[in-house]
Amino acid sequence: MAAVQGDVLALSGGVGGAKLALGLADVLAPGRLHVLVNTADDFRHLGLYICPDIDTLLYTLSGRANSTLGWGLEGETWQTMSALEQLGADAWFRLGDRDMATHLWRTEQLAGGMRLTAFTALLAERLSVSSHIHPMTNDRVRTIVHTDSGDLPFQHYFVRDQCKPAVTGFSFDGISAAHPNRDVMRLLQQKAFAQVLICPSNPFVSIDPILQLPGLWLALRESPAPVVVVSPIVAGLALKGPAAKMMAELGMVSSALEVARHYSQRYPGLMDCFVIDESDATLAGAIRELGVEVAITSTVMKSRADKQDLARFALGLRGS
Amino acid sequence: MAAVQGDVLALSGGVGGAKLALGLADVLAPGRLHVLVNTADDFRHLGLYICPDIDTLLYTLSGRANSTLGWGLEGETWQTMSALEQLGADAWFRLGDRDMATHLWRTEQLAGGMRLTAFTALLAERLSVSSHIHPMTNDRVRTIVHTDSGDLPFQHYFVRDQCKPAVTGFSFDGISAAHPNRDVMRLLQQKAFAQVLICPSNPFVSIDPILQLPGLWLALRESPAPVVVVSPIVAGLALKGPAAKMMAELGMVSSALEVARHYSQRYPGLMDCFVIDESDATLAGAIRELGVEVAITSTVMKSRADKQDLARFALGLRGS
Repeated sequence: MAAVQGDVLALSGGVGGAKLALGLADVLAPGRLHVLVNTADDFRHLGLYICPDIDTLLYTLSGRANSTLGWGLEGETWQTMSALEQLGADAWFRLGDRDMATHLWRTEQLAGGMRLTAFTALLAERLSVSSHIHPMTNDRVRTIVHTDSGDLPFQHYFVRDQCKPAVTGFSFDGISAAHPNRDVMRLLQQKAFAQVLICPSNPFVSIDPILQLPGLWLALRESPAPVVVVSPIVAGLALKGPAAKMMAELGMVSSALEVARHYSQRYPGLMDCFVIDESDATLAGAIRELGVEVAITSTVMKSRADKQDLARFALGLRGS
Repeated sequence: MAAVQGDVLALSGGVGGAKLALGLADVLAPGRLHVLVNTADDFRHLGLYICPDIDTLLYTLSGRANSTLGWGLEGETWQTMSALEQLGADAWFRLGDRDMATHLWRTEQLAGGMRLTAFTALLAERLSVSSHIHPMTNDRVRTIVHTDSGDLPFQHYFVRDQCKPAVTGFSFDGISAAHPNRDVMRLLQQKAFAQVLICPSNPFVSIDPILQLPGLWLALRESPAPVVVVSPIVAGLALKGPAAKMMAELGMVSSALEVARHYSQRYPGLMDCFVIDESDATLAGAIRELGVEVAITSTVMKSRADKQDLARFALGLRGS
């Protein structure tokens, strides 16, 4: 068991964040991990209500994630997609046959009035996930990617257009009217968390939508729990996804330092500690000048042991 | 080619009617068969818009029907259903993985504003079906089965409860406000059909909902085309489905004579000729007393040749 006592809150997007979440779930006692998950990537497609980040978390934590593809379910088949293609229907968003069951059931339950938080808890129970998976909100928030090809809904940018359009900015439609997850807000008020971790997810499209929910980042800052951020950029590269490409297009240097600067400027006083990879050790001084502690370790999570090691390391950090 | 000149209109429910429709499509020139299909069995399930009878017609006429199951697609897989069952979601209505594509695409297109008639034509085109498949209406009509276990939506009675509750009657929710298919009504006004065939489908839950659409059966009666009905009851038994069981529960003798009586009483003057199986030849006299011609042939369609033979036979009938 890890050194930290009490519950742990992790903020996460999809694949990159889920890796650290899996390590955390492994090293914490069952039920002590809470993951607050981005839902601004959610979208409706073929009439289905699809929550890519929530599903990635649940599939990863239940041992069902497809390790080859990096998304979806292990041992998946693609009969429905194949038939959709033959019909000439939209087939750019790949939905596996078993994954389809998740979307169908969620779509039906939400249409029947169930809230996303309640459905996610039900799905987690059925998948035997003991960690608490909290959608960031029950309200509709949608990431719009502003690009040189115009404004694109996130999945159109990310999947259909394969992140090719050059990014000029982001907005989160609906965010000003959205209520952050009430259970997490109540736990924060009750000082229930011993530690808050911001997973190595994309800062712009995975973590920003969570932190910019009204009242959320200030509640995190006011909480006594240290806030530890794990850099998603290692040696100038994003280990997963378009973060580095986005930074370059936004005129930023693609580096862990710029990620730290982004968080410290946008959310002053939030971060207590910023975790960088050993390959970025030379950046430590400049990051400390932002007023944040720096911790250095190997942050590349290839094996299950890598994930557990990084989880233990991050849980041992208390900040300044 | 069959003897009849001009287009042919067949009224059909699902499996039983689709057999004769396949025979008709085989013996008529491409594009000359029009099938007016029951949609009162349609329902929403798992958020999907499902049209069992339309799909059975399209799958049968495109050579994709599952000959073993008698419904769905040949060579189907069941991954989504298996995953739904494991999640504990509703899995009583079996949807194959490739069949799922049809429902997803239809649900999406209808939600986007396409009418069922237009979507059905598009689907027929993509499946290379040259016959015209006309949903009986674009409006919502739903069969309610009144039973000793209370009122049941059709698919709950038919699939979930496997026709076990005893039937006391039927109603077609929404029918008085529904508009019959406008293309078919226009073709009837234009006297475009040389013949009208009522397929050996269930009279109560497949054909009655079509005929009871406001204005439809009178338009058929006024049309110069002879109306030929093929009995769905042979030797007192329904070849497919619960028609015989329903008749017994409704206090009727389960026989071709009672089917003829049902049509002649409910739709006086509509039928010109009633086709019965050779095994029911002794009923011919009593049926003729209802004021309708009787034609006798082998009506059991096992092989493809059986279907074509019955189609040719029915197309050769002109009534009185």
